[in-house]
Amino acid sequence: MSERRSRIVSLFKPFASAGAPRLGTRSRGDDTTWRGRLRRLGGHDEDDTMSEMYVHGYDPRENERLQDQAGTLVGLLHSDTAYPDGSTVLEVGCGVGAQTLPLAQRSPGARFTSIDVSAGSIAEAERKMHCAGITNVEFRRADIFALPFDPESFDHVFVCFVLEHITQPVEALALLGNVLRPGGTITAIEGDHGSTYFSPDSPAAHDAIRCQVELQRRAGGNPLIGRQLYPLMVEAGFDAVRVSPRMVYVDSSRPDLVEGFTRRTFTAMIEGVREPAISAGLIEPERFDAGVRDLRRTTEADGVFCYTFFKAVGFKDVGEKRRDV
Amino acid sequence: MSERRSRIVSLFKPFASAGAPRLGTRSRGDDTTWRGRLRRLGGHDEDDTMSEMYVHGYDPRENERLQDQAGTLVGLLHSDTAYPDGSTVLEVGCGVGAQTLPLAQRSPGARFTSIDVSAGSIAEAERKMHCAGITNVEFRRADIFALPFDPESFDHVFVCFVLEHITQPVEALALLGNVLRPGGTITAIEGDHGSTYFSPDSPAAHDAIRCQVELQRRAGGNPLIGRQLYPLMVEAGFDAVRVSPRMVYVDSSRPDLVEGFTRRTFTAMIEGVREPAISAGLIEPERFDAGVRDLRRTTEADGVFCYTFFKAVGFKDVGEKRRDV
Repeated sequence: MSERRSRIVSLFKPFASAGAPRLGTRSRGDDTTWRGRLRRLGGHDEDDTMSEMYVHGYDPRENERLQDQAGTLVGLLHSDTAYPDGSTVLEVGCGVGAQTLPLAQRSPGARFTSIDVSAGSIAEAERKMHCAGITNVEFRRADIFALPFDPESFDHVFVCFVLEHITQPVEALALLGNVLRPGGTITAIEGDHGSTYFSPDSPAAHDAIRCQVELQRRAGGNPLIGRQLYPLMVEAGFDAVRVSPRMVYVDSSRPDLVEGFTRRTFTAMIEGVREPAISAGLIEPERFDAGVRDLRRTTEADGVFCYTFFKAVGFKDVGEKRRDV
Repeated sequence: MSERRSRIVSLFKPFASAGAPRLGTRSRGDDTTWRGRLRRLGGHDEDDTMSEMYVHGYDPRENERLQDQAGTLVGLLHSDTAYPDGSTVLEVGCGVGAQTLPLAQRSPGARFTSIDVSAGSIAEAERKMHCAGITNVEFRRADIFALPFDPESFDHVFVCFVLEHITQPVEALALLGNVLRPGGTITAIEGDHGSTYFSPDSPAAHDAIRCQVELQRRAGGNPLIGRQLYPLMVEAGFDAVRVSPRMVYVDSSRPDLVEGFTRRTFTAMIEGVREPAISAGLIEPERFDAGVRDLRRTTEADGVFCYTFFKAVGFKDVGEKRRDV
C-alpha cells in the first residue's frame, strides 16, 4: 500500500476529532462565484435582472424561457434529492435561498433548518420562502465552524456551493458529520472551473478563467473542488460515498442554455473578476478582454460550451454496505 | 449576423457538392487512439491481454470484472442506438469490429454494411462476428472518400472514432450524407482529449496528454473533435442535430473503471506515444515519464479521473422539426 493510501485510510477518523478553524470567505455573495451567479437562476432576487423579468413579466416569452433555464439547471442539480416526510435536514450556507427553494419544494414533508452567516441573506431567503408559500424551512444565522446544534440532531445534511470557499473543507465536512445521526446522509454539490472547455478553443479565455481560479485560491477557496468531492468526503469519514458528475453541455440547438448559462452565468461570472484580476497583476487588461470576447464567441451558432458540476452523497456510520443503494 | 455565422449558414450545402479528398491516417489501428484502445474493451482480439482473459477465462473473477467494464463503456456509448427491423445501416471505419458487435447485437433485425480500408481488420471483424453468432453484418473493404454505394442507399449511417483521424471531417460527413436516404439518421461518436482532468492535478500529465494531441494533429487528425461534433454536423448539412456528452467519471469506488478505463485504456494510450513524442522533440523523457506517473497516481484511493465522449445524431433533409424527437 502506498504511503498516500495509508494517509487517506488513517484519516477515516471519528467526526468529533476534527478541529474548528475559522471560516473566512464562505459567504461571499458577489457575482464572481456560483453562489452569487446561480441564485439568479433559481430565485427571485429583487436586484436581479433575470428575476425582475420573471417578477414583473415584461416579456412573457423571455419570462418562460428563463424559467425553463432555471428549471433545467435546478433539475440537473437537485432532481434526485428528495427527503422523507418527517425527516430533519440541515442546509448549510443557504445564502439567499436559491437552493433552499427547490429543496423544500421537492421534499414538502421534510423539515429544513437552513443556516448562513449573513443576516441579510437570511432575511432575503425568508422573504423568498414566504412569497413561494414554503412553510417547512426555519432559518438561523450560524457558522459552519460553530454549529449551534446538538450532536446527531439531523437526519440529513445538504451543502451546495459552500465547500469551494473553505480553506479546510475536510474539517468542515467532519463537523457536519457531528450533527448528523448515524445512518443519515450528507449531500454536497460543487462546480469545477477546470472542467470548462469550449469551441472555438481559446488560450486567452482559459487565461481569464484562471484569474477567477487564482483569486478564489488567494481568498482561501478551491474552485477546482468538484472533482475532489469523493476523496474529501471519504477523508472526512463518510461511508459509501457516491459522486455523480452533472455536465452542462451547450450548443446553439439549446438557446436557453447559451443565453442563461454560457453568457449570463459563466461568462458574466468571469467578467466579474476583471478589476481584481488586473489589480492583482494576474493578467493584462487586453488579454483578459480577449478572453471574455472568446467566451462570448462560444455563444455563436457554431460555438459549444461545457462545464461540469459534481454531486456527492455519503452516509454516516454505515460501512460500505449502502454503496449500491 | 456575424461573418462567421454567415459562413456557417452558407455551408448548409447539398451533399453532392462536397469534394473527395484522400484519407490518410483514418485506419491507424495502433494503441495510441480510441480505435486501438477501445477494441480491447468491446472485443475479443487474439492479441489482446484483456480479451484473452475473457476468451480463456483464467481468472473468473477478473473475467467478470472486465466484462462489466466493457459493458459499462459499451452501454455508455451505444445503449440508446437501436435500428428498426429491416432498416439498412452503413457503419464506416469498423476496424476489427469493436463497435460492430454491440451495434449488431442491439439491432438484430437491421442489416449492417460495415466498411474499413484495412483488409486485415475486416478479416478480424468477420471472425469476431462469426464467433459471436452475428449474421446481420456484411463487411466490405472501402474508403470513406470513395464509397462504392449508390446515392440514398442506406437508411442510417454510423461512424465511431473515425472523424478524429480525418483532415476534412465536414467533407467526409457530407459524403456520408450522399448515401443516406432523406429522413435517415447519421450517428457520430468521438472522444475529446481536452475533456481530460483529474485529481491530483498535474501539469506534467497534461503535458504528456498534449503530446498525444500534437502527434495526432500532425498526422492530420483532431483529438479535440468531440466538442465540435455539433458545428461539424451542421456544417455538413444535417438537420435537427442533437449532441449528448457521455462522461466517464472514475473514482476508487468504481474499481472496474479505475483499472479498465483510467489505467488500461487512457493511461496506456498516452504511454503509447512516448517514443514518437520524444523523437519529435515534443517533450523531455523525464517530463513525459513524470506525466504518466501522475496519470497512474490518479488510480490510487484518493484519485479521480474524468473524460468525456460525445455522441451526435443528425437527420438528412427533415428541417429542424425532428429536433425534439
